[in-house]
Amino acid sequence: MARWEPGARERLVVAAVDLFTEQGYDATSVAQIAERAGVTKSTFFRYFPDKRELLAAGQQTLSRLLAEGIAEAPEGATPLEAVAAGLGRASSAMGPMNRELAPRLKAAIAANSELQERDALKSVGLAAAMTDALRARGVPDPTAHLAGELGVLAFKRGYAQWLQARHDAALAPYTLAALEELRAASRSLT
Amino acid sequence: MARWEPGARERLVVAAVDLFTEQGYDATSVAQIAERAGVTKSTFFRYFPDKRELLAAGQQTLSRLLAEGIAEAPEGATPLEAVAAGLGRASSAMGPMNRELAPRLKAAIAANSELQERDALKSVGLAAAMTDALRARGVPDPTAHLAGELGVLAFKRGYAQWLQARHDAALAPYTLAALEELRAASRSLT
Repeated sequence: MARWEPGARERLVVAAVDLFTEQGYDATSVAQIAERAGVTKSTFFRYFPDKRELLAAGQQTLSRLLAEGIAEAPEGATPLEAVAAGLGRASSAMGPMNRELAPRLKAAIAANSELQERDALKSVGLAAAMTDALRARGVPDPTAHLAGELGVLAFKRGYAQWLQARHDAALAPYTLAALEELRAASRSLT
Repeated sequence: MARWEPGARERLVVAAVDLFTEQGYDATSVAQIAERAGVTKSTFFRYFPDKRELLAAGQQTLSRLLAEGIAEAPEGATPLEAVAAGLGRASSAMGPMNRELAPRLKAAIAANSELQERDALKSVGLAAAMTDALRARGVPDPTAHLAGELGVLAFKRGYAQWLQARHDAALAPYTLAALEELRAASRSLT
């Protein structure tokens, strides 16, 4: 298959994850990341405010896609059908780069508490984006809140399963299957 | 009513939250916190590794109480009944100090992204503690995962409602009512 060909932003993310893996997060400087990516430090700062934000790269895009998918779900959709529409939209943004980087990214996060915190905040942000989009559809609390949390869980669980799948598989079927599984679990809870 | 009378650990938390409120998190040093609390810097470091960890003070205790409550729920308890037992146990640990500090703590977190990250990681830790305790009872995934997340949501929502309640109210009825509300919402989802 053709290798995925990255632009400057993607090269910075790859370089950072590689350096975090090789020498640890704390020992890695912005200058080293820029050098490894073959760009200048000021190019780095055009894309990211600091090295920690590299990890959350894509959070804004993901939040926007989740919210758009939810907003544009058919009028009569249930909260979970709307969440499924959001997951479908957001899943389409994840491709070979995510798959290639995921194992190293996971190791870098596991090794550093600062990155774990940033990663946790990313989940909170994605849940909030979905909850707000559901509220805007008229879904009342706490249903909106709960459905937003289920959406994040489904995205994470589906993503983890996708990483185990064939390299050309699309993410959407995995996140949607995970949502369905959580819906069933949720029925067994009540 | 009698004022709550703090020990060194509690005085450090109060001093830190006050200083974060007055002058911001970044501008506040460990030395200033210790001075305000009337203790030495080395006393500070006996209780906390750094100023950020002050915010998560109590996370380990809460996690332990949640897990113990879940582990000791009656054998035939459903996953949500076990979570309710965990919430009941953990709620009993929150008292006047939490209530007194909560508004300033919330403001300090809202004003600082580093504290938001630490706070998000605290939620992740509490959810994981409950999920692990449910798995140890034989609850399968994804039910255990889902019930753990519901437990965190219930704790947060109940806590927020408790802060609005009469000053001598106990927390447990609020977290348990929030869990019941989420259970009902979860039924309406499926």
